[in-house]
Amino acid sequence: MFESAELGHKIGKDVWKRDIPELREGLLDAQLDLLQSKKFPVVILVAGVDCAGKGETVNLLNEWMDPRHIEAHALRDLTDEELERPHMYRYWRVLPPKGKIGIFVGTWYSGPLIENVYGRIKNAELDQALERIIRFEKMLCDEGALVLKFWLHLSADEQKKRLKKLEKDPKTRWRVSEKDWQHYKLYDKFRKVSERMLRSTSTAESPWVIVEGTDPRYRYLTIGKVILNALRQRLDAPEPPRHEEPIPPLLPSIDDLLILRTLDLKKKLKQDTYEDELEKYQGRLNLLTRDEDFKKISVVIVFEGNDAAGKGGSIRRITQALDARQYRIIPVAAPTEEERAQPYMWRFWRNIPRKNRFAIFDRSWYGRVLVERVEGFCPRSDWMRAYHEINDFEEQMIRNRTVVVKFWLAISQEEQLKRFKAREKIGFKRFKITNEDWRNRDKWGEYELAVCDMIDRTSTEIAPWTLVEANDKYYARIKVLKTVCERIEKALGK
Amino acid sequence: MFESAELGHKIGKDVWKRDIPELREGLLDAQLDLLQSKKFPVVILVAGVDCAGKGETVNLLNEWMDPRHIEAHALRDLTDEELERPHMYRYWRVLPPKGKIGIFVGTWYSGPLIENVYGRIKNAELDQALERIIRFEKMLCDEGALVLKFWLHLSADEQKKRLKKLEKDPKTRWRVSEKDWQHYKLYDKFRKVSERMLRSTSTAESPWVIVEGTDPRYRYLTIGKVILNALRQRLDAPEPPRHEEPIPPLLPSIDDLLILRTLDLKKKLKQDTYEDELEKYQGRLNLLTRDEDFKKISVVIVFEGNDAAGKGGSIRRITQALDARQYRIIPVAAPTEEERAQPYMWRFWRNIPRKNRFAIFDRSWYGRVLVERVEGFCPRSDWMRAYHEINDFEEQMIRNRTVVVKFWLAISQEEQLKRFKAREKIGFKRFKITNEDWRNRDKWGEYELAVCDMIDRTSTEIAPWTLVEANDKYYARIKVLKTVCERIEKALGK
Repeated sequence: MFESAELGHKIGKDVWKRDIPELREGLLDAQLDLLQSKKFPVVILVAGVDCAGKGETVNLLNEWMDPRHIEAHALRDLTDEELERPHMYRYWRVLPPKGKIGIFVGTWYSGPLIENVYGRIKNAELDQALERIIRFEKMLCDEGALVLKFWLHLSADEQKKRLKKLEKDPKTRWRVSEKDWQHYKLYDKFRKVSERMLRSTSTAESPWVIVEGTDPRYRYLTIGKVILNALRQRLDAPEPPRHEEPIPPLLPSIDDLLILRTLDLKKKLKQDTYEDELEKYQGRLNLLTRDEDFKKISVVIVFEGNDAAGKGGSIRRITQALDARQYRIIPVAAPTEEERAQPYMWRFWRNIPRKNRFAIFDRSWYGRVLVERVEGFCPRSDWMRAYHEINDFEEQMIRNRTVVVKFWLAISQEEQLKRFKAREKIGFKRFKITNEDWRNRDKWGEYELAVCDMIDRTSTEIAPWTLVEANDKYYARIKVLKTVCERIEKALGK
Repeated sequence: MFESAELGHKIGKDVWKRDIPELREGLLDAQLDLLQSKKFPVVILVAGVDCAGKGETVNLLNEWMDPRHIEAHALRDLTDEELERPHMYRYWRVLPPKGKIGIFVGTWYSGPLIENVYGRIKNAELDQALERIIRFEKMLCDEGALVLKFWLHLSADEQKKRLKKLEKDPKTRWRVSEKDWQHYKLYDKFRKVSERMLRSTSTAESPWVIVEGTDPRYRYLTIGKVILNALRQRLDAPEPPRHEEPIPPLLPSIDDLLILRTLDLKKKLKQDTYEDELEKYQGRLNLLTRDEDFKKISVVIVFEGNDAAGKGGSIRRITQALDARQYRIIPVAAPTEEERAQPYMWRFWRNIPRKNRFAIFDRSWYGRVLVERVEGFCPRSDWMRAYHEINDFEEQMIRNRTVVVKFWLAISQEEQLKRFKAREKIGFKRFKITNEDWRNRDKWGEYELAVCDMIDRTSTEIAPWTLVEANDKYYARIKVLKTVCERIEKALGK
């Protein structure tokens, strides 16, 4: 795999002088076209062996293009903000939007690579990590991003020479650390693991480009030309014709026995029982948040449900039990312009809570498989892959010790009608009812099927859905509170 | 995930009688259309908990459709032929061709599932196995197959009831074994692992359909309708317009320093040295094949190279050292009709050797990234994904203790011309030179780039390419023989 990158590639000064003006002009042009068309985001990874010129390459790219629309990220130690969130959070938060270029140095590959080289994770775990990366990059590509991956390579001899040279010069001595020599001693191991990594993550959509790092002119010119070529090709390509992919539609159950229809919506609580229980569970919840171990976990609560099912009321009964600094309510509506320029899941990643905190989502990432599916806002293949992406997302949170609680608040059609009419009458509630609510109501059956598919495909052993019979608000609120308490208790091992 | 499959779905006799005629007619029609159009192959998986009706379902599908064009595979214990090959061999060999339907019971999922439930493999290894499955199914979908996956579910109570009932009836008692009860005791574990498995392998292209297994009519009708719907949808869909995917082309090295060009083609051996070495290495090879440990491995040798580079001669120098019952030479030319109806890699899978055997490929799966790429026989996305598929394929062989040796025999353009002309003159060699050879020669440069990309992307730490300077036949043959000996010695730990 590294054979061609050990041949001693070199570019003479003459060629350099001849090619650079055209390359730079081309890159600037392409960057401008990208910025104006906002066709897609560009993710460039610069990885490879130590001293192969990763940093210099990024500096040069910044110099060659308009640096206001490139952002380079050399992520090293995790900040405390990042430490408290799932591993990929640090990358999600800095993904470039459509029209912009993000350059990542080191990147999501370095962690698993180093860990395996130093024997801290086994090959099976390395493979797990790599598969997560493949899924992440596949998601980026599916969402339209151009992903370019460069691996700067040096032979063992060349790396040693490089380290010695840097060490000799007082001006660059600081760049060589104990750790670099330690890495160098593991060169063979490092090379072997890198090869395994490159092999398994070189996909058709985002193949690695291995570049010999020895000669700077060769390195820069190669990377520059590959970037320009890929940019131009994507910018100039005609929009592919939209055609429905050959994914068969999901069929509803043949016997009309939908899980939503099996709920007993007559369930009720009397007012005085309600008040007792409310006090009991709010107290329990509050106590839990003050538990010493609560500092090690975070809680994400998702509220989905029919319009007017009482999501807001249930949320308030939770937050009443919490310290206001400890929670955030995230109302999810149509995406903002900034959010539309990012992968679908981006706006949820940015709202993952820190440890010791709650994030309460009033509607959520499930919009993809509910409203977007029913209203046809995205093609079938997009919402079909969303089930997988959502399960992935929740799994990453859970691995980071987040308790993920998901509620579907269900009311009957009659109850909804009653509430809609009441809302129209009461002045201070009128803002809560819009034409859209009435339109959604017309599609009751389609939404019902979408909800059942959502439950079937995303109610998992690690993040189950809780279906809440919500015709009676008292009953619903207590069921919600009780479930939240129980799930947190389970996470705390109580 | 199993919520909807525990609701007690049932279909009455009346509905059954009403729906079945139309369903059966529809299925037969669709099957005939499929057979005549040969548009795609259909792979149906029937998996799930014990006693949920997997076998009966398959029987019924066979009854409903024309059984001559359906093949059902209930693969249980590995045959000795299968035992000696990579794990997926048994599935590859029975994949349905385009136009036909293959039904798999149990399938590639059962192994990893059972192993994990019984604690014989850890979660990380389960994930590795599942990712291999995802890649396999992705390949099937990329190659155009329709993959339908059914999971028949029973609740714990229902399964127990089923087992008891079967045991009670003397006619069905034989169907319940000790092992079934053993499985039953692990129901909760089994359920949990299944859920993890279904979650991670439900992709947009081939999502699982979970079917409650309790009521036979419900089960049959659901599966029948899903199959009919998917078949019809794919059969009736217009061919998607062919458009070049937005994958950027691979760029050649900017400095003309190609690895092929760095070979010293002047390397030579004198005739008498050649004869000594030939005897030495052939003897060594023969001895190796009679080593006791050789019975535990197999050897795959791949010959690629320029036309007239001497592949045949090199192969003969190997086989001279072997027992004729121990090797097969597989000449690879344009695929046969049978092979064209299968995924690209199928014709190589069927030729994987047993233990203690050699398979020598005169040209190989690398045709995908050489001739098919250069001649445009397949779109770029197909040969780009082939690098990954090829590495996967070789990795599976190597995990099964196959020694994979790959040779590129390189000659210069001048040497090739000399040999072409000589072949045209000598009567008994004339069959070896065709118009196609001359045409290929015109594309020397394009082939050169394709070969270099092939080396860069598939010369891996586990299956490296050996580049052979072949202007001198003596030199080439000895280098080949010596490499084969060394690689086998390494595998035998000598």
